[in-house]
Amino acid sequence: MNHFDISDIVNGLRLARDDWRQSQDRLRDTEGREFPSRIALNTTMEQLKGALFPMRLGSPELRRENEDYYVGYTLSKALSTLVDQACIELGRHHTVAEQVREQACIAIRSFSETLPELRRILDMDVQAAYQGDPAARSVDEVLLCYPGIVAMIHHRIAHRLYTLELPLLARIIAELAHSQTGIDIHPGAQISEACFIDHGTGVVIGETAIIGQRVRIYQAVTLGAKRFLKDEHGHLQKGQARHPIVEDDVVIYAGATILGRVTLGQGCIIGGNVWITDDVRPGQVVTQASLLQDPSKPPSYPN
Amino acid sequence: MNHFDISDIVNGLRLARDDWRQSQDRLRDTEGREFPSRIALNTTMEQLKGALFPMRLGSPELRRENEDYYVGYTLSKALSTLVDQACIELGRHHTVAEQVREQACIAIRSFSETLPELRRILDMDVQAAYQGDPAARSVDEVLLCYPGIVAMIHHRIAHRLYTLELPLLARIIAELAHSQTGIDIHPGAQISEACFIDHGTGVVIGETAIIGQRVRIYQAVTLGAKRFLKDEHGHLQKGQARHPIVEDDVVIYAGATILGRVTLGQGCIIGGNVWITDDVRPGQVVTQASLLQDPSKPPSYPN
Amino acid sequence: MNHFDISDIVNGLRLARDDWRQSQDRLRDTEGREFPSRIALNTTMEQLKGALFPMRLGSPELRRENEDYYVGYTLSKALSTLVDQACIELGRHHTVAEQVREQACIAIRSFSETLPELRRILDMDVQAAYQGDPAARSVDEVLLCYPGIVAMIHHRIAHRLYTLELPLLARIIAELAHSQTGIDIHPGAQISEACFIDHGTGVVIGETAIIGQRVRIYQAVTLGAKRFLKDEHGHLQKGQARHPIVEDDVVIYAGATILGRVTLGQGCIIGGNVWITDDVRPGQVVTQASLLQDPSKPPSYPN
Amino acid sequence: MNHFDISDIVNGLRLARDDWRQSQDRLRDTEGREFPSRIALNTTMEQLKGALFPMRLGSPELRRENEDYYVGYTLSKALSTLVDQACIELGRHHTVAEQVREQACIAIRSFSETLPELRRILDMDVQAAYQGDPAARSVDEVLLCYPGIVAMIHHRIAHRLYTLELPLLARIIAELAHSQTGIDIHPGAQISEACFIDHGTGVVIGETAIIGQRVRIYQAVTLGAKRFLKDEHGHLQKGQARHPIVEDDVVIYAGATILGRVTLGQGCIIGGNVWITDDVRPGQVVTQASLLQDPSKPPSYPN
Amino acid sequence: MNHFDISDIVNGLRLARDDWRQSQDRLRDTEGREFPSRIALNTTMEQLKGALFPMRLGSPELRRENEDYYVGYTLSKALSTLVDQACIELGRHHTVAEQVREQACIAIRSFSETLPELRRILDMDVQAAYQGDPAARSVDEVLLCYPGIVAMIHHRIAHRLYTLELPLLARIIAELAHSQTGIDIHPGAQISEACFIDHGTGVVIGETAIIGQRVRIYQAVTLGAKRFLKDEHGHLQKGQARHPIVEDDVVIYAGATILGRVTLGQGCIIGGNVWITDDVRPGQVVTQASLLQDPSKPPSYPN
Amino acid sequence: MNHFDISDIVNGLRLARDDWRQSQDRLRDTEGREFPSRIALNTTMEQLKGALFPMRLGSPELRRENEDYYVGYTLSKALSTLVDQACIELGRHHTVAEQVREQACIAIRSFSETLPELRRILDMDVQAAYQGDPAARSVDEVLLCYPGIVAMIHHRIAHRLYTLELPLLARIIAELAHSQTGIDIHPGAQISEACFIDHGTGVVIGETAIIGQRVRIYQAVTLGAKRFLKDEHGHLQKGQARHPIVEDDVVIYAGATILGRVTLGQGCIIGGNVWITDDVRPGQVVTQASLLQDPSKPPSYPN
Repeated sequence: MNHFDISDIVNGLRLARDDWRQSQDRLRDTEGREFPSRIALNTTMEQLKGALFPMRLGSPELRRENEDYYVGYTLSKALSTLVDQACIELGRHHTVAEQVREQACIAIRSFSETLPELRRILDMDVQAAYQGDPAARSVDEVLLCYPGIVAMIHHRIAHRLYTLELPLLARIIAELAHSQTGIDIHPGAQISEACFIDHGTGVVIGETAIIGQRVRIYQAVTLGAKRFLKDEHGHLQKGQARHPIVEDDVVIYAGATILGRVTLGQGCIIGGNVWITDDVRPGQVVTQASLLQDPSKPPSYPN
Repeated sequence: MNHFDISDIVNGLRLARDDWRQSQDRLRDTEGREFPSRIALNTTMEQLKGALFPMRLGSPELRRENEDYYVGYTLSKALSTLVDQACIELGRHHTVAEQVREQACIAIRSFSETLPELRRILDMDVQAAYQGDPAARSVDEVLLCYPGIVAMIHHRIAHRLYTLELPLLARIIAELAHSQTGIDIHPGAQISEACFIDHGTGVVIGETAIIGQRVRIYQAVTLGAKRFLKDEHGHLQKGQARHPIVEDDVVIYAGATILGRVTLGQGCIIGGNVWITDDVRPGQVVTQASLLQDPSKPPSYPN
Repeated sequence: MNHFDISDIVNGLRLARDDWRQSQDRLRDTEGREFPSRIALNTTMEQLKGALFPMRLGSPELRRENEDYYVGYTLSKALSTLVDQACIELGRHHTVAEQVREQACIAIRSFSETLPELRRILDMDVQAAYQGDPAARSVDEVLLCYPGIVAMIHHRIAHRLYTLELPLLARIIAELAHSQTGIDIHPGAQISEACFIDHGTGVVIGETAIIGQRVRIYQAVTLGAKRFLKDEHGHLQKGQARHPIVEDDVVIYAGATILGRVTLGQGCIIGGNVWITDDVRPGQVVTQASLLQDPSKPPSYPN
Repeated sequence: MNHFDISDIVNGLRLARDDWRQSQDRLRDTEGREFPSRIALNTTMEQLKGALFPMRLGSPELRRENEDYYVGYTLSKALSTLVDQACIELGRHHTVAEQVREQACIAIRSFSETLPELRRILDMDVQAAYQGDPAARSVDEVLLCYPGIVAMIHHRIAHRLYTLELPLLARIIAELAHSQTGIDIHPGAQISEACFIDHGTGVVIGETAIIGQRVRIYQAVTLGAKRFLKDEHGHLQKGQARHPIVEDDVVIYAGATILGRVTLGQGCIIGGNVWITDDVRPGQVVTQASLLQDPSKPPSYPN
Repeated sequence: MNHFDISDIVNGLRLARDDWRQSQDRLRDTEGREFPSRIALNTTMEQLKGALFPMRLGSPELRRENEDYYVGYTLSKALSTLVDQACIELGRHHTVAEQVREQACIAIRSFSETLPELRRILDMDVQAAYQGDPAARSVDEVLLCYPGIVAMIHHRIAHRLYTLELPLLARIIAELAHSQTGIDIHPGAQISEACFIDHGTGVVIGETAIIGQRVRIYQAVTLGAKRFLKDEHGHLQKGQARHPIVEDDVVIYAGATILGRVTLGQGCIIGGNVWITDDVRPGQVVTQASLLQDPSKPPSYPN
Repeated sequence: MNHFDISDIVNGLRLARDDWRQSQDRLRDTEGREFPSRIALNTTMEQLKGALFPMRLGSPELRRENEDYYVGYTLSKALSTLVDQACIELGRHHTVAEQVREQACIAIRSFSETLPELRRILDMDVQAAYQGDPAARSVDEVLLCYPGIVAMIHHRIAHRLYTLELPLLARIIAELAHSQTGIDIHPGAQISEACFIDHGTGVVIGETAIIGQRVRIYQAVTLGAKRFLKDEHGHLQKGQARHPIVEDDVVIYAGATILGRVTLGQGCIIGGNVWITDDVRPGQVVTQASLLQDPSKPPSYPN
């Protein structure tokens, strides 16, 4: 490398940062980098997976007689990191370090106490996948190989952190799954047990979506928002319920798009590539053909 | 981290595991973790890629005069790991360690003998990609950068292991490619040479699909099952032929969905986003427009 | 591992390589592996991200008072690697090492000088994402968690290398983002500032696409080619303008497919799953409904 | 690298190996590499140190409330590796894999049961170092910083493996300490509790040495053999008692050399650089001066 | 690994720890592991070496034009770790976290300000080694290969931390050098510039030793204590001046032992293996022969 | 870390560097860091050890049938690195890159051709150690555990590089062994086959020493220079023969010091701690006692 004038570029980048900070009102903030670490959370997720499913996702040399040691130790490492990361997230809005740590401890302790229940729900997800896919040969194949299970483990953990007021940790954990599986579930979404997402690439589930028990979803399904509301200043209104409600036992085939705060009634079936912006009755079967043949129920589209 | 009552959580998780094991009839199994390792197979795949394409995917400091040493050594490491992993998969259903190892050796030896032929087929895939994409500047760019090639290398290896009765190894290898490329090919699928999958994200190819020579497939194409048959007990019938047959020289554009045991006849062209659940004649061009304009051939949809 | 006849497989693989090389006229090339390294470029991209956004994507222990040292040092490592990798790419077509290195230095120096401007453009992308998504809670969440931002950072860097005649480096960098995000942008595409790709999985943007300012794109959108021109020998014509032009302030909803050298006029809105192969007027709103209801403007399809 | 004729060197090395194997009667041994791994044993030693002293040598994030989980899990990993390594050592002389593993398990189980006692003895070593060195500020400094403690931990573990008929594992563990500290204790040596080796570099303690309680030894002290006995064929007689016996409360200053099966009586003091090949009475003070001044007790030297 | 009763061993180890803690009055201490990390300090030392000698011990890709960026960034990482580690050391004796960190910052800031001077002194050490060894071919060989230089870099850094009331950090840094070089210098020792220790294995320099300028020391030299003073309770008196004073321009050949608070006068020469417990006059040459031939000056020995 | 004024320290360090460079006449040298890498050479040494002793020091999963692949590949990596490092060393004194690389290739090719012979010599060293130590239980224990063998492997490789005019590479390789074993052999020393250094800590063998066949050396033996000759300017004369000649079958016990260009005659025995500065006759036994009792041969000492 010859004669790069690094200092010119360094200066140029500093000016660009200064302008950005000025535009964001951050010039006074001199306290260093205060963002949770994607790498740390990735390690933590591997540890939590091992603690939840020690013989299948944990350390290879493990034997049943030593499971509890492994679980206890792995858990204590994972929770310790989570407390640190939670401190970073909470610390961005608070100033007293002591209080931040106490709040972080309370949140992660609360999180940790729900882990046994979370394992039971994930077992139901695994069971649902095994029963829902003729290609699945065993529950273990499902746990080891199905991206939909990875997505559910991440989501169920992320969602609990989200409800404990740690949305940034939750979002990073969700995005780790999105990157690995192509399944993009916002941590705010509420998903009941025995959910099975097959193949999964391209699935998008929005922040305020609510999904009942035993729902089956295929690749490229979107549960999205129809339109975004703005306030009087033209800014987006954040936090509005704007995604679908999917009741128990619904099946949504690949490529279907459901938009807005609509309800898919219990046990209904949404065909592939179908575009839905209105409620669907319980038990109804909606396909592209049925839509075309029912002129009294014209499809509606977002703008 | 203050005062986590780890032992309560450890106990809760043990109870959840016990319940799961009881539900799966596994209480007696005390032999430790017996699942193939995703990490080990990932390393093995990198080694096999290096042995197949030493100058392009192998060790950077390699020179032609030393290729064979590299290939031989890398191969022996990869095959050794494969035998170990095959023992783990086979051992789950057998009890005599000696026999398991012998069976694993036979399978992997058989696998290894087909590697030269596999390289020749992959060369045809590379050539097909180069000829099929105007953006491709060289065969090397294709091998280095095209996710479709990654998917084909993984699939062709996974498929051989699948036919050698190692479906779990095969599935993990397929899922490694799915995670990296967004292309989800079940290792059971039979794909002839010179197959080119472009862009690839969202492609799903099912377990019993059969694909001929020189087929071109774009992103988000599904070759899926139309419906799942259940036996008299309401359980899914596993192993039925339920995915499409794609004959030679077919092109399937992005987003097309072909469902069920239909046949796409030689040289036919399936337009983007088209939804197909019936046979297509050789040479036929099927688009959304053609479907709408041919009332004698109403589109059918899955339920 | 017992009694693998490695030498037979090694010989078989050598014969396969020899045949390939003969078919590609490469028998004389004895100079070793001369391809850029995906691993090296991945590290370089992490360094460039750190140099561009030190407090958010850089080293965790960083503090503002030391930012410039970090930026300068990280940059010098990244640029040094880029020069080496550029030498490898350029060296494949040239023979005089001295000239190759000089050319590589000129290219990377030119690249480096645009980094401050690139940071400013990426800030606009971040701002656009924050303003465009009601689920985004802060600009920092956008930078840390949004795959669309990862894709834009990679693309803007890859595009500059592409215009500096380093298309292979550019392609690898683009594919690194594709693998991580499911967003496949060819480095040749020209994208103006404040571009926001939400969710992103399955997005494909072709080599000759041109995208204006403040464009918003959702998952599974394709900006593709309609058909490939062939020359008199039946070979694909490479380098032709064959992808859409998207003007300023356009919004393209999920799953829309726009094919060919068409123009989406300023401020128009393309609904979800819509299939477009003709120009769209500025301000026009195109949905599946509008297409069905406007018989004077029949949809056209590719063959 | 240009034009190395690697194959000539490979051939030359193979011939050299063949000659060696012929000279060692090993031509038939085709079972692969069967030697314990220095790297594996190094990792195991770190784990055992952590299990023995969790809060000081174990994982940094550890807290007392989780100690037992850490100890149990770390121990189970260490013991698992020890069993594997013991199988390798024992397998070199046996043929039935089943029996080898059973024998290895028995040995390592026996080893594991003495760990609590071993910790108590090491605590006495630490206490002795703290009391014996005016520069030591705390028992923790001793445990963290004193090479003599590293040597004692390794030796006490190695010695138990040595008495359990695993001399090769023992030797590797001893050599790991030698390399790190310069203290070379043969695992056969018997050393009672509260032993303190200060500075340590150059200390050599032979295979059949016996050392009492509360002995203090400084750098470069040798407890060696005076001469080696040969049998009628001129081969060294192995396993003979040939190193000193050091009784309780002896102090040996730096550079002293004690050779042969002599006894240093209880509480005697051996001055620096002194050369001893005869018994020393309890309580006696031996210095270079005292040796020179006592003509009735001429110093003897080895040949 | 079969049927280890890990829980018995875990219990046994817990009891051993409890007894130890009771004996050390530590039962109440529940605040976790609070010891500086050898691994962290090893990394820090590599960083400090790089910051002090960037082109020779720093990052390989470095060029002069970027040295300052490297130095500034590397330094900021090293100092940040040092502050953390200092907090751990200081925190063992204090309770208010705020004050501990402030004190740590003051100490490390003070340390950092002397680094330029420290580099100048080390340059003199390098120069002295080059001039003192006929085998040295260049000053760079000295810096890259001479263990004596490693020992001096560690010592000069450790000594400053020692004087800043961080004796545990200092001791660990000293022991890192001891382990690598066999040279054991207590961080309390005061060593003036242009000191050259050749070969070095076995050198021991005690806590209160004072060494002048341009002193040359060979392997296995001891500058030790003659005897340890005890107080009325029989405990060692810590902190007493008890090691030699070596004036400017002294040479001490291999294996010489100098014990007690004696003074080696300016420019004197101490022969190999000589044993000294009294003052040596300036300019005097002391050898084993001279000692034997000077009956008026009988050698004295420690008890 | 608060408010370190890093820039002041950076400036201070720059000034110190500038002064050093001025004193060394190096201000014009702007070509970056040009020193061989200790880390790279450490890796290379591990590779060479594996290539020389594949089944014992090479990759654990190796089997005899694949040895040659491993040897060939490992060797090609090691030699490639050696050429690069040799270029760095040679490049410090030459300017034309082309010539430097050619010279480096010639040297390393010459080095590589002697590797088979080197393996045979090392086999003799191993055999000598096994026969010379009653504690050795097998030739494999010797190869795996004896620091003297590590030292001989490093020395024999370093010496060949030294004779090929690569003294800096040689020195670094020697120092790697010194750091690990405490045995400090200058790469210039000439050592014949079947050399056994037992325990080894503190052994120093000087640059111009010559050692015959079947020599046995114990810990802390010095083969050093008696005095250093200076030229008329008072500078040390470098390169003079100044270390001992040790003829065949000599044994030198621990702590013996032999200084100057003296000859230890064939088969002589040098007792422990003996100090020698004159020739020793073949077959002579020299002990401290014999020296004291032979007044006609007064011991001489260096000044």
